[in-house]
Amino acid sequence: MTTTMSRASSALAAVLLAGCAVAPAPVAGTPAPVAAAPGDAAAPDTMRWLYGSGEAAGASIQAYRMLADYALARVQEAPERSVPLGLPEAAGGTGVVSCLNPDGSRKPPAVVFDADETVILNSGFEYWQATHGGAYDAAVWERWEREGAAIVAPVPGAVTGLRRLREAGITPVFNTNRASDTAAGTIAALAAAGLGEAVHGDTLFLRGDDAAGSAKDGRRAMIAARYCVIAQAGDNLGDFADAFNAKALSVQQRRTLAARGDLAQLWGNGWFVLPNPVYGAAIRGTIDEVFPPETRWSPDTAAAGQ
Amino acid sequence: MTTTMSRASSALAAVLLAGCAVAPAPVAGTPAPVAAAPGDAAAPDTMRWLYGSGEAAGASIQAYRMLADYALARVQEAPERSVPLGLPEAAGGTGVVSCLNPDGSRKPPAVVFDADETVILNSGFEYWQATHGGAYDAAVWERWEREGAAIVAPVPGAVTGLRRLREAGITPVFNTNRASDTAAGTIAALAAAGLGEAVHGDTLFLRGDDAAGSAKDGRRAMIAARYCVIAQAGDNLGDFADAFNAKALSVQQRRTLAARGDLAQLWGNGWFVLPNPVYGAAIRGTIDEVFPPETRWSPDTAAAGQ
Repeated sequence: MTTTMSRASSALAAVLLAGCAVAPAPVAGTPAPVAAAPGDAAAPDTMRWLYGSGEAAGASIQAYRMLADYALARVQEAPERSVPLGLPEAAGGTGVVSCLNPDGSRKPPAVVFDADETVILNSGFEYWQATHGGAYDAAVWERWEREGAAIVAPVPGAVTGLRRLREAGITPVFNTNRASDTAAGTIAALAAAGLGEAVHGDTLFLRGDDAAGSAKDGRRAMIAARYCVIAQAGDNLGDFADAFNAKALSVQQRRTLAARGDLAQLWGNGWFVLPNPVYGAAIRGTIDEVFPPETRWSPDTAAAGQ
Repeated sequence: MTTTMSRASSALAAVLLAGCAVAPAPVAGTPAPVAAAPGDAAAPDTMRWLYGSGEAAGASIQAYRMLADYALARVQEAPERSVPLGLPEAAGGTGVVSCLNPDGSRKPPAVVFDADETVILNSGFEYWQATHGGAYDAAVWERWEREGAAIVAPVPGAVTGLRRLREAGITPVFNTNRASDTAAGTIAALAAAGLGEAVHGDTLFLRGDDAAGSAKDGRRAMIAARYCVIAQAGDNLGDFADAFNAKALSVQQRRTLAARGDLAQLWGNGWFVLPNPVYGAAIRGTIDEVFPPETRWSPDTAAAGQ
């Protein structure tokens, strides 16, 4: 069961979150019935951790505290340039944008958030995925986008974090790969989760708002044209820079790009990541890809080497 | 394969990390050979995320930045009392300890860290687990404790974080459920990972140092008798208070205890959690336990309700 779910989650990841991929059109119709898992079956470990554990709740509360502390301090400095949106200039990107309008006036400060598993928990959809099994079903996900508001929950810490931002005059802006044609459902879900108002085209940007599919750099530029973006938050590296999700990067190259050099300086310092092992570009790779040769151990080898 | 690994990880969790449980004695002898997974098999999603993703690397770099920033600011305040070690007094615990010795002199400041998946990554052992499959093997884990130093890696951000603490005169102290009789291997592993020196009984406390098994409150008290503990860090709620891992708590009660009320105020504010979905008390529960009734959704129900 876990294997099926993991693959389904990976498929969800590939469809929703991989950089530069254009999401397929939703398939019409009711999903074919499959054998359902009973509620007393073991939940997948990734869901246990994210949706069931106090550790995950603590981790997100911690991240939101850090993000709000950072943003409240940063806005006091009246920054002249945004946080890197996409790769920084030093890495070949064009990510840093002026916080001044052409007439010299200041853009209002904002923090840009991904939505799914960043500000809202899609526990309802994932419960269905856990019980239903089978492959990711785009039609079901679309229904969840449209109808999930009654069940969706905030990520622990997000309601307090966003409230602190708004009280300090900082606008939360959402940049999500939910579809533009389900905007009403997403706006309702954000409001129902206690995350406040979102206005499509002003504080909410969706897949389909430009021609770049799931890639977010273009939408980041749209946001930065009107806001001074002092921080970014997300659960996927693509929420910070499309370059991380380039298909040419190996698992280890992608990790190294995030964890070494200039970009590593941004974690907790303008870029804030929320943990999500359930789906997304973060969970790909064979055993050999995840564990490079220098990390491999076995008790037999160790014995031979003694 | 994933199912097997998940259960093996859960077994590891139960043995190593559940509060108040006494770990069984390691079984002597060589593990029985089982069918091994090839390196091109899919890695478990939890390992993909923790050991392979830039998201996890960013999350731990972020947590260590926050921890070091917090500790450096806190030590300037010359605190008179420790951070809560175990439940705070308001919650019925005895967790806050004076930072003054009986003669009125100040105890030296310290931050208490768990070891596994908090400061060091056990990629080597988990690679073996991923390829080997099968149940958790205590004898193999014991060999890893003894012999893993050549392969063990630091958690991203930990080397810099611990260096910043030491430069500020703050001592990192390790409180781990590795066994006291493999102390030499753990000391070697910490040093090899670039995490500095650890001295058993002074800056390193292990399972077996007292009669409480895997429970850590007693060792926390031993540490607080000589140090002013200004922060705690770990990947398991038991690294902060044994009460979280009481067997009577349901999955949801445990999460609520961590995420609501007084204790929620501590995340990122004295208590710092590192994400670990691979093993531990965080990954337990059936589908029904992980997803309480108010979170359950299905497209069929939604259709009926329209």
